[in-house]
Amino acid sequence: MISYETSQNMITLLSMGKIRSERVFLTSALGRILAEDIIADRDYPSHPTSAMDGYAVLHSDFGEFESLEILGDNPAGADEIGGVMSGTCIKTFTGSLMPKGSDTLIPIENVRVEGEQIVIEKRVPAGFAVRPVGESYREGEILIAKGTKLGFAEIGVLAGINRVMIRVAQRPKVAIIATGSEILDIGESSRHAGQIRSSNSYTLQALVDALGGESVQMGIVGDDKSAIMERFEEAIHSCDIIVSTGGVSVGDYDFVKHIVPRLGAEVIFKGVNIKPGQHVMVAQRGEKFIVSLPGFAYSSTVTFILYAAPLMARMMGIENPYEVIEATLKVPFAKRSNKSEFTACNLTFEEGRYWVDFEGKKTGSSAILTNLLGNTGLMICGEEDGDLESGTLVRVIKL
Amino acid sequence: MISYETSQNMITLLSMGKIRSERVFLTSALGRILAEDIIADRDYPSHPTSAMDGYAVLHSDFGEFESLEILGDNPAGADEIGGVMSGTCIKTFTGSLMPKGSDTLIPIENVRVEGEQIVIEKRVPAGFAVRPVGESYREGEILIAKGTKLGFAEIGVLAGINRVMIRVAQRPKVAIIATGSEILDIGESSRHAGQIRSSNSYTLQALVDALGGESVQMGIVGDDKSAIMERFEEAIHSCDIIVSTGGVSVGDYDFVKHIVPRLGAEVIFKGVNIKPGQHVMVAQRGEKFIVSLPGFAYSSTVTFILYAAPLMARMMGIENPYEVIEATLKVPFAKRSNKSEFTACNLTFEEGRYWVDFEGKKTGSSAILTNLLGNTGLMICGEEDGDLESGTLVRVIKL
Repeated sequence: MISYETSQNMITLLSMGKIRSERVFLTSALGRILAEDIIADRDYPSHPTSAMDGYAVLHSDFGEFESLEILGDNPAGADEIGGVMSGTCIKTFTGSLMPKGSDTLIPIENVRVEGEQIVIEKRVPAGFAVRPVGESYREGEILIAKGTKLGFAEIGVLAGINRVMIRVAQRPKVAIIATGSEILDIGESSRHAGQIRSSNSYTLQALVDALGGESVQMGIVGDDKSAIMERFEEAIHSCDIIVSTGGVSVGDYDFVKHIVPRLGAEVIFKGVNIKPGQHVMVAQRGEKFIVSLPGFAYSSTVTFILYAAPLMARMMGIENPYEVIEATLKVPFAKRSNKSEFTACNLTFEEGRYWVDFEGKKTGSSAILTNLLGNTGLMICGEEDGDLESGTLVRVIKL
Repeated sequence: MISYETSQNMITLLSMGKIRSERVFLTSALGRILAEDIIADRDYPSHPTSAMDGYAVLHSDFGEFESLEILGDNPAGADEIGGVMSGTCIKTFTGSLMPKGSDTLIPIENVRVEGEQIVIEKRVPAGFAVRPVGESYREGEILIAKGTKLGFAEIGVLAGINRVMIRVAQRPKVAIIATGSEILDIGESSRHAGQIRSSNSYTLQALVDALGGESVQMGIVGDDKSAIMERFEEAIHSCDIIVSTGGVSVGDYDFVKHIVPRLGAEVIFKGVNIKPGQHVMVAQRGEKFIVSLPGFAYSSTVTFILYAAPLMARMMGIENPYEVIEATLKVPFAKRSNKSEFTACNLTFEEGRYWVDFEGKKTGSSAILTNLLGNTGLMICGEEDGDLESGTLVRVIKL
C-alpha cells in the first residue's frame, strides 16, 4: 500500500490533456472557472468623470473671483456639454463627464447659489471629486486571470467592459455508479431488512455539483460482473470521470476491482494507507479517469474529496478544490491506526483562529455519514503521528 | 444620519412575516435552506450489520473450538440468512446483516480456511466489526435542524432516510432596477462618451443568486420620475425585495428617494453614517422591502451586502448571510472619514490566522469595483476608530 502523500503526488503528476472550454452568457457564468485572461480594452473611466453632485470649476479660480457664473446643467448621460472658462462653472452630477476646461468639482454642500452665480463657501483641493482617466483600470491591464472562479465582483467587472459571452472551463462530466446488491434507491420500497437505503449516489452528486461538475446518475447495479462491466462501459463513453462506490474490498462479491482493469484502464494505484477508504482505486483510460471508492458512506465521501475532487479541479484548470487550513485542537485526539487518518471534526472560528473539537461526532465504523453534518472539517493526521494533545496545531480540509 | 450599528439593529428588528416554504426534489435541494426539522424515523442501522468481510461467529467460541464449521455464505443484500450456533460460522460481507446468534465478525485476514472449516489465527474483541443498532442515529433524533443550508452531507443523510421531497425556504424574489440616464446595458452600442456601461445590475444579480435568491432583472430606467415610478410599481407586485441603484443622493435628478415614499412604503431609514454608501435608503411596504442603493459600483455592492443580503437571509430563516471574522492588519491603515468605513482588503490565511493587506487595492472614488476582485474581504472600521497600526485585530466580512 502506498502512502497518502505518494497517492496525492501521483494525482498531481497525472497528465490531464488540455483544458476544454466553452463560451457562456454572462448571467450563466457565476461560479464557473474562467478559461481566458480578461484584459481591459480601454482606460476606465475613459474621460474625467464627476464623483459627486456639484459644480465643475477651474481650481485656479478659487480666490480669483467673488463668485462664478453658472453656464448650465450637465446631467449624467448627457452628450454635448459646454466648456468651463475662467469665472464660470457648470452644474455637474455624479457620473457625468467633467466639462472641458474644468478640473475640480466643488460639491453642492460647499457653495451658496445667488441667482445665476455660486459663491464658494468651503474650498476643496485641485482635482477634488473627479475620477481621473484610468482610475479603475488602464487599457491592457489583466483584470481577471484564467483559472479564477467567477464571483459577483468578477461578473460585475465583466459587465462593465461589455463582455456578454465568457470563455469558461467546461464542467467535467462525472458518472456516478453505486454497486452492491444490498442497495435500495430512494423512493423504492424495501422488501426485506437486508436492503440498505442508498445515500452514496446523492452525496456524490451533491459534491460533483458543488464543485462545478456535471453529474450523471448511472444508478445502482448489483454485485453481478457483466452488469457492472456494462454500466462502466456505458459511462466511460459519455463521461470524463467515472466514480463508483463499493466492490473494491477483499470480499468474494467485490467485482469492481477486477473489472476496471478489464475496461482497458491503467490502474494508477489500488490501496492507500489511509483511514477511512484504504481500498480506493484510481485508474486512467486515455483522458478519462475511473475513481473506485469503497461502499461505506463516510469512506466514499472522504475518498471522493481526496481523489475525485482534485481530478475534477485539474480538468477545470484549478489546483485545489478545498482549502486546507491550520487549526488548534481543543481536546486531545486518540489516533486509531498507523494510517493517515481523516477525521470529521467541528470547525469553529473564535478569537482570531480556527479550533477543532469532536463534540457530537461518533466513533465507530466508516458508515457514519452523519458525522459530516454541520460545520465540519476533515482533520488530517499523518501516518507517523501518534495521539495528539489538546493545543496541537493540525491541518484541516475545510468542507 | 444614523450610525451603522443603529441601522443594523433596525434591520434586525424589522418584522418579516412567516418564512414561506416549498417542497423540492432532493436533487434540487443542494444549497437551499431547510424549512423543517429532519427527524430519524428509525434506528440506523436497524439491525446489527457487518462492517468488514469475514466470518460471523460467537465470540465465546474463541478458545473453545480448534476450528469452526462454515455453514454458508451471507452476501450483502441477502434476505434469508441462517443462524450461527456454537462451533459454526457464516461467511459474511461488508454491509450484510449479521446472522442470528452471531455477535462478532472475524475478518478474512485473521483466519485460515481448511476445507469447510476456519481456523482462527488472530482473535478480535467481542463485537468486532459489527455496526450495532443505532450506530449512526436513533429513532426520534433530530438529524438536521430547520434553517440549515443543505450541503453534500445533508443531501446524503436525507437520501439515507428515503426523503425524496424536502421542505425548504422559498427563494426570495429580488427585483433589480438600475436608474440613471447615463447607463448603457451590456451588449448595447455606445452612442457617446457620456454613457457608462452598467455593471450594477449584473453584480447584484450574482449576489442575489449566490445567496439563494431569485433575481428578476427589471432593466435600466432613465432619470424620469414617471418611468421610475412605473418600474417600481411593476416590481413591487411580483417581488419580495426591490433593490435599486442610483437616485438617492443630493442631485437634481435623484428621483428615487422621492418616489419610494410615494409607493406607500414606510421609510425605515434614509442615510447612514457609512463610507461608502451614506445615502442608502431602506423602506417597507407590508411584507415587502425596498432597498435603494447609491449608483457607484463599489457603493452599491457594499450597501447590498450590508442591507439587502440580511433581509434576504431573514426571509429564508437564517441570521447572517456572511461570516464576520477577526484578522490581523499586516500594514497600517489610514482612516479617511469619521464614518464607519468598509474597505476592500486582501484576506489571506497563514500561520493559523487571517491577515489583511491592501496590495493592489486602489484608493479613489466609490466607483472602483475592481477592488472587490480576488480573495477579498470588507474590513470594518468603526465611526470612532482613527488610523490603525499594523498588528491591529480588525473585523472583516468574508465575501
